[in-house]
Amino acid sequence: MGPRDLLQLSTPAALLEERRLDRNIARMQAHAAALGVQFRPHVKTSKCVAVATRQRAAGAHGIAVSTLKEAAQLHAAGFDDILYAVGLATHRAAQALALQRAGCQLTVVVDSLAAAEALVATARAEDQSARVMIELDVDGHRAGVLPDAPLLVQLGRFLHTSGVELRGVMTHAGSSYDCRDTAALVRCAEAEQAGSVLGAQRLRDAGLPCPVVSVGSTPTALAARELTGVTEVRAGVYVFFDLVMMGLGVCTADDLALSVLATVIGHQPERGWIIIDAGWTAMSRDRGTPGVRPDPGYGLVCDVAGNVLEGWVLGTTNQEHGIVCRRDAHAGASIAEVFPLGARVRILPNHACATAAQHETYHLVQDQRVIATWPRFGGW
Amino acid sequence: MGPRDLLQLSTPAALLEERRLDRNIARMQAHAAALGVQFRPHVKTSKCVAVATRQRAAGAHGIAVSTLKEAAQLHAAGFDDILYAVGLATHRAAQALALQRAGCQLTVVVDSLAAAEALVATARAEDQSARVMIELDVDGHRAGVLPDAPLLVQLGRFLHTSGVELRGVMTHAGSSYDCRDTAALVRCAEAEQAGSVLGAQRLRDAGLPCPVVSVGSTPTALAARELTGVTEVRAGVYVFFDLVMMGLGVCTADDLALSVLATVIGHQPERGWIIIDAGWTAMSRDRGTPGVRPDPGYGLVCDVAGNVLEGWVLGTTNQEHGIVCRRDAHAGASIAEVFPLGARVRILPNHACATAAQHETYHLVQDQRVIATWPRFGGW
Repeated sequence: MGPRDLLQLSTPAALLEERRLDRNIARMQAHAAALGVQFRPHVKTSKCVAVATRQRAAGAHGIAVSTLKEAAQLHAAGFDDILYAVGLATHRAAQALALQRAGCQLTVVVDSLAAAEALVATARAEDQSARVMIELDVDGHRAGVLPDAPLLVQLGRFLHTSGVELRGVMTHAGSSYDCRDTAALVRCAEAEQAGSVLGAQRLRDAGLPCPVVSVGSTPTALAARELTGVTEVRAGVYVFFDLVMMGLGVCTADDLALSVLATVIGHQPERGWIIIDAGWTAMSRDRGTPGVRPDPGYGLVCDVAGNVLEGWVLGTTNQEHGIVCRRDAHAGASIAEVFPLGARVRILPNHACATAAQHETYHLVQDQRVIATWPRFGGW
Repeated sequence: MGPRDLLQLSTPAALLEERRLDRNIARMQAHAAALGVQFRPHVKTSKCVAVATRQRAAGAHGIAVSTLKEAAQLHAAGFDDILYAVGLATHRAAQALALQRAGCQLTVVVDSLAAAEALVATARAEDQSARVMIELDVDGHRAGVLPDAPLLVQLGRFLHTSGVELRGVMTHAGSSYDCRDTAALVRCAEAEQAGSVLGAQRLRDAGLPCPVVSVGSTPTALAARELTGVTEVRAGVYVFFDLVMMGLGVCTADDLALSVLATVIGHQPERGWIIIDAGWTAMSRDRGTPGVRPDPGYGLVCDVAGNVLEGWVLGTTNQEHGIVCRRDAHAGASIAEVFPLGARVRILPNHACATAAQHETYHLVQDQRVIATWPRFGGW
């Protein structure tokens, strides 16, 4: 089937602008190269083999995943070097080792002796080694061991002396999403680097191996000015970008590769409302980062070509209804003329990972034509 | 395969407590019967043939759907009387008529002349009739024609004289979700009834047919004390209930049939955090109704048997991480003893429709044993 006009798609539909996608991929890869580090894309954003394949073709080194299902699907598609970047649940250790036996170079992460002991016990029971990294906490965001905590070296020693392959340290400065300006982002990136390099040094000082020092989040990856001592950077959402990233100043609206195509299904002219068929099943219920001003609601409204219609937002989402309105609540000219029944609009999402997760397919678009349809998987 | 222990499930997993599910179904059915109206469950909450089958077995009369995919799937499973309760997009008219040709008694809704004209044009082009209801706006919530607007009769007359089968009027008092007390809910239910009966009367006074007067939302359905002039009630989320409904006072925590099983994957003892493997991919990003106090975060925490652990909430969700903490931020006793690594918890969701939409299967549970696994569909 040849390219189709965008207007032939039923709605709601997830669109990917090919030029923006490729530009985002190239930008991050060039940035990592300039910093002298390898780049490992996190495929949790796209969960799509075709997208990951483009990231690899651009020079990516391995991938990161958020579920073992992603690991299995991407391994089946020919990806070998996979970092499972979520603390390993004890009951998943056997599944992780099975993937390794199937030829996948899977690395898991732990941040406690209890998790390390469970991993070692499973590996011994299956007479197999495991590849593991220790997760560091550099910003109090979520999981991880403090880089200066005695536990870090205890954990490293336990793993190393238990026949496990200690691959190094990794961290995710997730608090970067709460930064309010570029200076704060740069400080966050510096803290991510300093913490991870400190942790690595402490392991090495104790005579333990630490070949890999892995950091990353899209905002810190792009804000980093130098990464001495770091060997690889990870990032996920950069591949699509979104309004949260735009609010952080690391991209512009013209970089947003993912949008949701929707159809006008009604009007409430007195209230200045346009009802569209993209509700939260199409957009997710993610309201973005509270700090983004002006508030984009559930997303910014574009025409079918992808040009932002200044001042219009997706103000409300129900399950299959969205309500488009003026941010200033003044509808101005007749809304039914601007947005007639059956007209198409595109919505730029707050959080690309969450919006993408609501869809089973991406439609790759160039010049308002659908040039490919790519499956996306979900679940665990 | 016989029943399995709950602990054998991988996580995150969507659980349905069978007794609560059946009790919720029976309660709404008995309530509608006591009010002398038919009951039409909205299957958008479960999107599951097995759940809809139990609703039908309990006495439900037809179903409502939010997508034509739901209509097609449920029709294939033997459901005939289907109300597609979202304003019909012009490009979907042909698909709706095709379902009708396939034997499905599908009724669509319109709330504008433009939508009615598009429907009539498609029906004529396919030499087919259509079954249609007019959507009324009784509370300024979303879509619909005002019951006292001249447009209502114009629309009815246009449809009736265009060879379309005018089935009646329907409305959804969605603003009931914003009510703060039972008295407000009762007023909302009264307004829903009064508006829909007025609309029906105006159509009949104009000599137009209006056999069906359909109202509903879970809160107004349960708050309604009498429904003179109404012929059927619709409700969706009552089948599972959720924390939003609990906040509205129409159910208690013991009625919540849907929960998400999760595993403890880490701790941050100094911060009083328990990290679990249920993030927003498992719970959705729905933060519920702002009015619910005390704030349940992304959900209330239960032990594996489903008993609420007082004071614990799912405070934060990332993609595959959830952070469980005390609502009062005081962790108290050692959290790793209360929630050891690998332990299972259950999370009660804010919004059952949104949480269910994140899952591909439901595990039907009785006495901590999985007695059935039911598929759920998504998409459009």
